[in-house]
Amino acid sequence: MHTPRAIQDLYPDDFAHCFGCGRINPHGHQLKSYVEGEETVARFTPRADQVALPGFVYGGLIASLIDCHGIATAAAAAELAAGRTIGAGPVPRYVTGALRVDYLAPTPVGHELELRSRVRERNERKAVVEVALSAAGTVTARGEVVAVRMPSTMQQPPRR
Amino acid sequence: MHTPRAIQDLYPDDFAHCFGCGRINPHGHQLKSYVEGEETVARFTPRADQVALPGFVYGGLIASLIDCHGIATAAAAAELAAGRTIGAGPVPRYVTGALRVDYLAPTPVGHELELRSRVRERNERKAVVEVALSAAGTVTARGEVVAVRMPSTMQQPPRR
Repeated sequence: MHTPRAIQDLYPDDFAHCFGCGRINPHGHQLKSYVEGEETVARFTPRADQVALPGFVYGGLIASLIDCHGIATAAAAAELAAGRTIGAGPVPRYVTGALRVDYLAPTPVGHELELRSRVRERNERKAVVEVALSAAGTVTARGEVVAVRMPSTMQQPPRR
Repeated sequence: MHTPRAIQDLYPDDFAHCFGCGRINPHGHQLKSYVEGEETVARFTPRADQVALPGFVYGGLIASLIDCHGIATAAAAAELAAGRTIGAGPVPRYVTGALRVDYLAPTPVGHELELRSRVRERNERKAVVEVALSAAGTVTARGEVVAVRMPSTMQQPPRR
């Protein structure tokens, strides 16, 4: 199936402030992930200053995109596993338990990056998502995101 | 020993543009890491909008800080292993081969974050660095950075 709306745009308003993908965060990356068949896909073009070394995309940005895309993939998978249609209502919010990124090759700037991911395993509480990031048709980084259903302790900002 | 200058400020000018820690990148995080005894230490206070959920620091930022701090730690370790003093000249530039972050607990906003790292193993070509990130005295994330000496292919920007 193909979602007309981004998964992140289905996060409840109270949890849509993420710097990486929240629609309410005006300064953030606002990454958008879509279900396409068995995968979820996101595309993002880094700015010229988001580099590690001249000409190569900053690895911290790559890690951030993999993180948010993996979390969105877990949210969509939970909805689909429950028999619901993506876009019919809000999706559940996951947080990152662990993130691993293997940088296979330098990622050149000046290209739209494509992230594709699949859920490797999931249960009610968590999902393990594999993400491949490519530039100009070459996979330059692979990631694994352990996505955990948002604990109730994160549903209120902490007291200082 | 204790370095009066940040490790990242000793990167050669041509390789000091990193969004996470380059002194030449005006829009970046400009993370600064210092050798303190057997560890390297960096401190960083996130902005209010660098959140994942209201009240909690964005995991992508945490990954980015761990990455740059780990890379700086590897550079300093190479200098020390060669018998040189940190600050006496430029330090070698490492890039990230792999990054792993375990998010142990939500990281509350409104605090200065502290990163402490040690080199677990190293040889001429690469180093494995362990990083602990804490907020208000509690370690909320642990990271492992596989740092690799910058390959010659990254010393020139790629052709489009």
